[in-house]
Amino acid sequence: MIREIKRHIRTVEDFPKPGISFKDITPLLDDGPALHQAIDALSSVVEHLHYDRVVCAEARGFVFGTALAYSMKKGLILARKPNKLPGRTISAEYDLEYGTDALEAHLDSIPPGTRVLVADDLLATGGTARAMCQLVENAGGVVAGAAFMIELGYLEGRKLLEPYEVVSLINYKTPDSP
Amino acid sequence: MIREIKRHIRTVEDFPKPGISFKDITPLLDDGPALHQAIDALSSVVEHLHYDRVVCAEARGFVFGTALAYSMKKGLILARKPNKLPGRTISAEYDLEYGTDALEAHLDSIPPGTRVLVADDLLATGGTARAMCQLVENAGGVVAGAAFMIELGYLEGRKLLEPYEVVSLINYKTPDSP
Repeated sequence: MIREIKRHIRTVEDFPKPGISFKDITPLLDDGPALHQAIDALSSVVEHLHYDRVVCAEARGFVFGTALAYSMKKGLILARKPNKLPGRTISAEYDLEYGTDALEAHLDSIPPGTRVLVADDLLATGGTARAMCQLVENAGGVVAGAAFMIELGYLEGRKLLEPYEVVSLINYKTPDSP
Repeated sequence: MIREIKRHIRTVEDFPKPGISFKDITPLLDDGPALHQAIDALSSVVEHLHYDRVVCAEARGFVFGTALAYSMKKGLILARKPNKLPGRTISAEYDLEYGTDALEAHLDSIPPGTRVLVADDLLATGGTARAMCQLVENAGGVVAGAAFMIELGYLEGRKLLEPYEVVSLINYKTPDSP
């Protein structure tokens, strides 16, 4: 089944810039049955984790975050670019190649003690996921783990997320993994 | 049930700028059972439409677009801001208060004749939804209808989407509707 899901992931070289090998999930999204199967498979790898809400980052992260929240009947927390949310927010910064960016979430979306699953389509270096973990903890919530549709294992993003439990559906262990 | 869903939608005045009455869906997203119920309700109002894929616009639109695609076992087309997609794209422009913006989708996500449901969280003046309809038609697809969680009926966005069938779960018919 993983092989069938992988068949729908397209590698695009040198996007968005030279040297980056981009994993394009849009062929997987295009295919209704394959998408449904991938979401069910991702749900099954997080089944043992205990959480109340799923947090996901703008914009592509909203896709699998929403699907997981719906399929597991959990709440959904949007981690957005600055100044997009109308209520009182908390913020966490993360490093870009040049400079920093930030994610914000509504403070009342993470009441103290809430157990939150971090979800994203892709784990690369782990910066965005780590910022989501910090958002949760800054608000007094508890990170229940982190789940990814795709992991680029060779970038070792997992290390940046220690000591949280990290699960992924598809792990490309080397840059040349099929 | 609509009343229960409405109870989770918060109106924020003067956001993102003075004079705008913003419908904030994040309290609905926070609540797992309410979110699940809202998505099931939205699925039921599009049940009579015949479509192969759902198209939704970055970023907030990815939430209900993904949920609809998953719950109805359909494919999902991402309509993104320019230069975010790695493959060959088609584009449609829409008007902003000052100037224009554009949405892009992968051309191979909309093979000719594909029936596509346009989905978004909110129908206001209809500009974004209309751009999604144009994307679909520019690629040779067929617009099967448009579905919204919330409609601001008094802004008459429906008119801009004629002759397509428009469905919404919650319709605020006046600016003061509870």
